Amino acid sequence: MRRFVAETTKKLTKTRNVSPVSLSLHHQNHNFLASSQTLFLSSPLSTSTSSSMDNSNGSSHLITLQTINPKVLKCEYAVRGEIVTQAEKLQEQLKKQPESLPFDEILYCNIGNPQSLGQHPITFFREVLALCDHPSILDKSETQGLFSADSIERAWKILDQIPGRATGAYSHSQGIKGLRETIAAGIEARDGFPANANDIFLTDGASPGVHMMMQLLLRSEQDGILCPIPQYPLYSASIALHGGTLVPYYLDEATGWGLEISELKKQLDTARSNGITVRALVVINPGNPTGQVLAEANQQQIVEFCKNEGLVLLADEVYQENVYVSDKQFHSFKKIARSSGYGENDISLVSFQSVSKGYYGECGKRGGYMEITGFSTEIREQLYKLASVNLCSNITGQILASLVMCPPKVGDESYETYCAEKDGILSSLARRAKTLEDAFNSLEGVTCNKAEGAMYLFPRIDLPKKAIEAAEAVHTAPDAFYARHLLQETGIVVVPGSGFRQVPGTWHIRCTILPQEDKIPAIVERLTAFHQKFMDEYRD
Amino acid sequence: MRRFVAETTKKLTKTRNVSPVSLSLHHQNHNFLASSQTLFLSSPLSTSTSSSMDNSNGSSHLITLQTINPKVLKCEYAVRGEIVTQAEKLQEQLKKQPESLPFDEILYCNIGNPQSLGQHPITFFREVLALCDHPSILDKSETQGLFSADSIERAWKILDQIPGRATGAYSHSQGIKGLRETIAAGIEARDGFPANANDIFLTDGASPGVHMMMQLLLRSEQDGILCPIPQYPLYSASIALHGGTLVPYYLDEATGWGLEISELKKQLDTARSNGITVRALVVINPGNPTGQVLAEANQQQIVEFCKNEGLVLLADEVYQENVYVSDKQFHSFKKIARSSGYGENDISLVSFQSVSKGYYGECGKRGGYMEITGFSTEIREQLYKLASVNLCSNITGQILASLVMCPPKVGDESYETYCAEKDGILSSLARRAKTLEDAFNSLEGVTCNKAEGAMYLFPRIDLPKKAIEAAEAVHTAPDAFYARHLLQETGIVVVPGSGFRQVPGTWHIRCTILPQEDKIPAIVERLTAFHQKFMDEYRD
Repeated sequence: MRRFVAETTKKLTKTRNVSPVSLSLHHQNHNFLASSQTLFLSSPLSTSTSSSMDNSNGSSHLITLQTINPKVLKCEYAVRGEIVTQAEKLQEQLKKQPESLPFDEILYCNIGNPQSLGQHPITFFREVLALCDHPSILDKSETQGLFSADSIERAWKILDQIPGRATGAYSHSQGIKGLRETIAAGIEARDGFPANANDIFLTDGASPGVHMMMQLLLRSEQDGILCPIPQYPLYSASIALHGGTLVPYYLDEATGWGLEISELKKQLDTARSNGITVRALVVINPGNPTGQVLAEANQQQIVEFCKNEGLVLLADEVYQENVYVSDKQFHSFKKIARSSGYGENDISLVSFQSVSKGYYGECGKRGGYMEITGFSTEIREQLYKLASVNLCSNITGQILASLVMCPPKVGDESYETYCAEKDGILSSLARRAKTLEDAFNSLEGVTCNKAEGAMYLFPRIDLPKKAIEAAEAVHTAPDAFYARHLLQETGIVVVPGSGFRQVPGTWHIRCTILPQEDKIPAIVERLTAFHQKFMDEYRD
Repeated sequence: MRRFVAETTKKLTKTRNVSPVSLSLHHQNHNFLASSQTLFLSSPLSTSTSSSMDNSNGSSHLITLQTINPKVLKCEYAVRGEIVTQAEKLQEQLKKQPESLPFDEILYCNIGNPQSLGQHPITFFREVLALCDHPSILDKSETQGLFSADSIERAWKILDQIPGRATGAYSHSQGIKGLRETIAAGIEARDGFPANANDIFLTDGASPGVHMMMQLLLRSEQDGILCPIPQYPLYSASIALHGGTLVPYYLDEATGWGLEISELKKQLDTARSNGITVRALVVINPGNPTGQVLAEANQQQIVEFCKNEGLVLLADEVYQENVYVSDKQFHSFKKIARSSGYGENDISLVSFQSVSKGYYGECGKRGGYMEITGFSTEIREQLYKLASVNLCSNITGQILASLVMCPPKVGDESYETYCAEKDGILSSLARRAKTLEDAFNSLEGVTCNKAEGAMYLFPRIDLPKKAIEAAEAVHTAPDAFYARHLLQETGIVVVPGSGFRQVPGTWHIRCTILPQEDKIPAIVERLTAFHQKFMDEYRD
């Protein structure tokens, strides 16, 4: 289906010089385009007054798909795409007619949204947030009975870091200075190398930071960004919206989604020979949707590669707390660069972190930061200006970002509870990852790499030719066809691999490891039964 | 100075085909560009591998002003521009050497940020936020002693509207459905016309909504947006970032910043004859930075104009609660359109609202929404997709947006306190506006329109020729020159009118009415003394 959208988009954008003209589009199962409509097209280069919208001839709306920014049309975002829209409709149906479907609940395995599936927030973090939201209770005696002593102390400390203790004021465009200092101290403790509060830009989750960097770096389609395939669709979406070119490099599924420097080099050279100026390399570690954790030696090669080729390294490190195997460990790219002897003047590096992932999973709070090193003062001024246009990120998210980078310590009243909550979540995630991985690997024609980290499995499904033909007959990518049937028959929501891109001719789905443990057996059972039935129907 | 930046930008972007070349820039008082630097330029259209950055010849950083997106360079945002950076430096200096400056504090009158200047948040709102942040205290007996009964009840209601009561989960991309329903009910109560939860997009403040609309509508420089001059720089900045053209229409200072349809028509026709496709009209009501409140009849004309000319109406209505004169009242453009008999199919209308303004002033919470009517399903799908790329706005801001649109009602425990807090803030703002307006009008060569609404005064200063020449000698706009001296001598931070654009040859400053009342006499005194001295020095 996505291929079909892309073709329609191409057709629409190509015909934009005809003005006005009416034509009809007919297609099936199409989410973004109505199945039949009249188009009023206007040439953006027309110099006559007739280039204004013609609103007098039966069209009830001014703005049409043919007159909006084609970059918007081109942008795709599968994590919340057609399958999810379909799931929401089924959920409504279940509410109204509980007996009308062959399952009794929708299981959202499409998105890394732990608290939506029952994960509890870390108590200490929420205590501090509540106290910062309503500081006038800090002095009341009842508060001692409701909140831990260290949460009260931390709230006071944070309030003292905020000018005028005003948690409802816009902050500095990069975020509250004191909170950035706390975060810098947390990075220093993590890496063993200095970090500077002036290098931190607090953001509403990691996404706005990624957009900001794309906006800064991309001048035209001739500018490219090296991105892993499979990739998290934020990257393809933001590159499309900012008008650049995604330069793909393929992760090697056979070696557990290995990142080979030779592949990077090959793709970089190809892009350059096609006239693309490659500006940056995106690395997602731990990987999304692929779940691999990079080895230290591999990271050193990547840093070396960026330095030699003059690329900015955009390091998506939002899953830094999500590592589930004992033989792997998270290392930040900044630590690797500094350990290799590269300083401020040697490599331009951006590290993205978010409060949405880790053991905290505070997606709705939209907190995060980017740490920017190896950029000149005048470029940082430009980034500051971009941040200023949106004034600042939300203060609750800013506070939370400081908390996740500086959680309770030994001796604090909350420490034991905090450790129990954190370890409980992480060890459970590791168990869930293993159970689901085993389940996928037990299915006919399915192979699934280990989730060493992050929150996803990305099993490969060798779909029978008959299934592929059935999918093509309804203008749908084969993995989307599989995912749609899985949803309709089991209520399980996954994202088709085509939303993340994949080696052509291979088919995957992304499934989170987030459903609570008591639901996992039922998921495995439903998935296994569905897959069996699907294969029985389509086996060659 | 801004003019100078623009010229430098033009020069830099023009020379982008030379590759690589070194040249030197020399200028004074320039914030964004270093005073002397080596440039390494690369042609975006080069097809050889040499188009990669050359990093081996002494340049310590990859990315330079010559290789970033020129739209970023072009974008300006005066509200947090040079004067504010200078103010922050002076504040640091005051901390270290309190006696080193002729004043003892910096008074930020540059930005509508009430809580940073001591305004207290509305108690009920903060109670609800705290309870939603830490719902596990809702059942505890101590909570009854700390929180009002209706805040507890509201928190329960909100939690019940959130799937799984998960305040830490990503929501629907448009925001939590139940909260959107509350907001729609609030709009209905305000306007007396139906509102629909599906038309609401919850956003992190109003700014992301404005960006989203610009991203949707602007295809190239040939697409224009009609904006008031003076305007809030979010509009010029987001039009620049999305590569469109700002089509100015001038508000008439002589008639209290009147908005004349003949002026709109004239500017629209001029733009069209220059080949610009004008897509939308921005109206800010109450006005920023100009403070006028539009008359109902004028609003009807504006709606008519948009309908006849086929323009989307982008209504910035974030100051809807800030009206200080008894003969004026806020009417939403949707109410005006519906009262005029125009429905969904007649006019495309977007209304922006924010939790940052009004009597609430919760800037740091980054809450807001846009209400979208008169757009087709497929365009709404595109907006939904854009919203999805950033997942959702922050939940705290979402909750707050529902609270400001549905505050306590007669009979609720908090009602009296709420009314006292609200009325206290609004009546004090009205007094402050009047005092500052009178103060400005008493100054030699200064005329200041009434602040009927919003949070700003925008006095016009007839600067003497000698002052203008002195400003030009240091490559600075005359009003920026005035604002800089005002800061250096009094610690008062205002924004030069040139940051908002103005009729050429006129000079203004924007000054908020937000300092607390006990500070106003000192501000008036310092301002008056400064102005007297300035005029004595530069009077022709």
